[in-house]
Amino acid sequence: MASQNMPLSEFELIDRFFKSRFTGNLHSAVSLGIGDDAAVLTGLAGQSVCVCTDVLVSGIHFPAHADPAEIGQRALRVNLSDLAAMGAKPVCFTLGLTLPSADEQWLLKFSSGLFSAAEQFGCSLVGGDTNRGPLSVSITAVGEVPSGRPVTRGGAMPGDLLYVTDCLGGGQVALHYLGFSAAEPIAKKATLAEARNKAVHRDLTREEEAYLLGRFFRPEPRFAFADLTRNLMSSAIDVSDGLHADAGHLATASGVGLRINLDKLPFAQQVLDLTSEEECVTAALFGGDDYELCFTAAITHKDKIEKVASTLELRVTAIGEVQQGSGVSLFNEGVAVSANHGRGFDHFPTVDRQ
Amino acid sequence: MASQNMPLSEFELIDRFFKSRFTGNLHSAVSLGIGDDAAVLTGLAGQSVCVCTDVLVSGIHFPAHADPAEIGQRALRVNLSDLAAMGAKPVCFTLGLTLPSADEQWLLKFSSGLFSAAEQFGCSLVGGDTNRGPLSVSITAVGEVPSGRPVTRGGAMPGDLLYVTDCLGGGQVALHYLGFSAAEPIAKKATLAEARNKAVHRDLTREEEAYLLGRFFRPEPRFAFADLTRNLMSSAIDVSDGLHADAGHLATASGVGLRINLDKLPFAQQVLDLTSEEECVTAALFGGDDYELCFTAAITHKDKIEKVASTLELRVTAIGEVQQGSGVSLFNEGVAVSANHGRGFDHFPTVDRQ
Repeated sequence: MASQNMPLSEFELIDRFFKSRFTGNLHSAVSLGIGDDAAVLTGLAGQSVCVCTDVLVSGIHFPAHADPAEIGQRALRVNLSDLAAMGAKPVCFTLGLTLPSADEQWLLKFSSGLFSAAEQFGCSLVGGDTNRGPLSVSITAVGEVPSGRPVTRGGAMPGDLLYVTDCLGGGQVALHYLGFSAAEPIAKKATLAEARNKAVHRDLTREEEAYLLGRFFRPEPRFAFADLTRNLMSSAIDVSDGLHADAGHLATASGVGLRINLDKLPFAQQVLDLTSEEECVTAALFGGDDYELCFTAAITHKDKIEKVASTLELRVTAIGEVQQGSGVSLFNEGVAVSANHGRGFDHFPTVDRQ
Repeated sequence: MASQNMPLSEFELIDRFFKSRFTGNLHSAVSLGIGDDAAVLTGLAGQSVCVCTDVLVSGIHFPAHADPAEIGQRALRVNLSDLAAMGAKPVCFTLGLTLPSADEQWLLKFSSGLFSAAEQFGCSLVGGDTNRGPLSVSITAVGEVPSGRPVTRGGAMPGDLLYVTDCLGGGQVALHYLGFSAAEPIAKKATLAEARNKAVHRDLTREEEAYLLGRFFRPEPRFAFADLTRNLMSSAIDVSDGLHADAGHLATASGVGLRINLDKLPFAQQVLDLTSEEECVTAALFGGDDYELCFTAAITHKDKIEKVASTLELRVTAIGEVQQGSGVSLFNEGVAVSANHGRGFDHFPTVDRQ
């Protein structure tokens, strides 16, 4: 039915911006890509197939006026991050693109960002659907993981350590500082602004702006790390909704409690330069958009995990422990604190810091 | 990031309407369904995996005021139709649902229609994403087909016969008669209305209305037929954009020409009762939304195909032939006619009929 929505140009548009840009079989399992009723993957013997879908809606997941190349990057990367959180490697993806008009400039930039990410991660665009309507980008990513070896949310055991990769809070601080919510109803801005209402807001340097744009639009699916630690992790999730919510999902799926030591949370210096540490904690816990791995591993694997992290030059931080019980408990320098974030994303209450 | 869009209830909503309705592993390959970062499929050895995505946008692919259960049915069925056109069988699907508000009544009905179709076709909902925004439904269906045996668009050979399953034109006539375009910008209505501008429009009987609702909202993916004829078909596509366009895709992918004999096109009596045969031809060629299989097969398979059709009590009609050359040629009772449909979906020109 799609051609009827964009009668003159949909097929040409697909050919021009997507099919003709098809960069061949970036993954050998893709035996049939764009251009038939469905894509076909063959030769995944010994592998399980992972499938995940994320929809990015204009004005909610990205500002409508954002650089289309960055939207393309972000749309694919946030999906791939889910694959990495399963210990899977990317194979291919499909694209459901709804856009208000066949804007060639927009499409040129969007597809360039999308394909740049696709090439970086070795996964081909294998199909999809283009329609006219309010701008949104729906991507389904397909990955592979050795059969029986996916890392689920459900394997954390009491005594395991809780880790995160790289740094947290950057996604949320980026949203705030880049002013993306000025013209668009990005839900988080107001909240962080509220948390920040006594903070000094200053202009960004060019380097800071580049860093924040990167954090928001080009999160890094942690494939290399997940591939080397697949057999060490007992559970994993990617931090998309904020550490508090996502750790909560791990705890629930594993039937355990998680203790998070707030004083251990890792923050980038670029983020600490822009906001207080307390606000960083708020952003990390409730902000989301960081797309780092949050995972657990037996304490006996501690050295191995640190070695992989060192090899990859990736910061990996033990931020807490798995306990008997349920839910997420927050501690600051040994003192229990409560996450009174109430409805939505109110800021984290004053922490009794030294 | 999704939880931030529907802060209070997204997780509860997913649990209530989708996760709790997860009907177990309708397909044995689904080793991990809803509730992790990605679904996991295991044990598809010897099978190729087929993946296809369709996005249905409110006001374009269905009227916003349509029965949500019917929207759920249609959203899954049009995706599954693509799998059937590959000769594949369904395994599972993901759902990207964007909706303006967490309307419980709407969700209850929508999920009931969706799961009803899912159970009928034995494919589980294994994951997805729920967001707030303009109503649209993005589904990615995953299927399986014996390795090396997918039926592509690219295998038609000169001398093959061209077939369609069941009847054509019903999707378009349904759109018109059900008045779906009255409140919503469904693109086709105006066109068919134009084609029909001298026709008498009458009220539908209850039976006619039920028939047309079924044609539009519950198209039948032809899995049983495709499964029994996978090794007989040389190429296949499902008729979603209109026979002329979709046969054109077959011709292009196969590097052949297709001759369609308009006087052979199959129409349901219910549709012929509502509109002229000439308008039926227009609807079949340019209307779309029929989701029947259009396929080719060597003439030596004619008897076998007829036998399968007879066994399944499915009307299957030889409507033309594969030729040397390119493109789609139309004939009516042996006389070449031209498809002057011009821009978009203008009606098929007067045919020199006896």
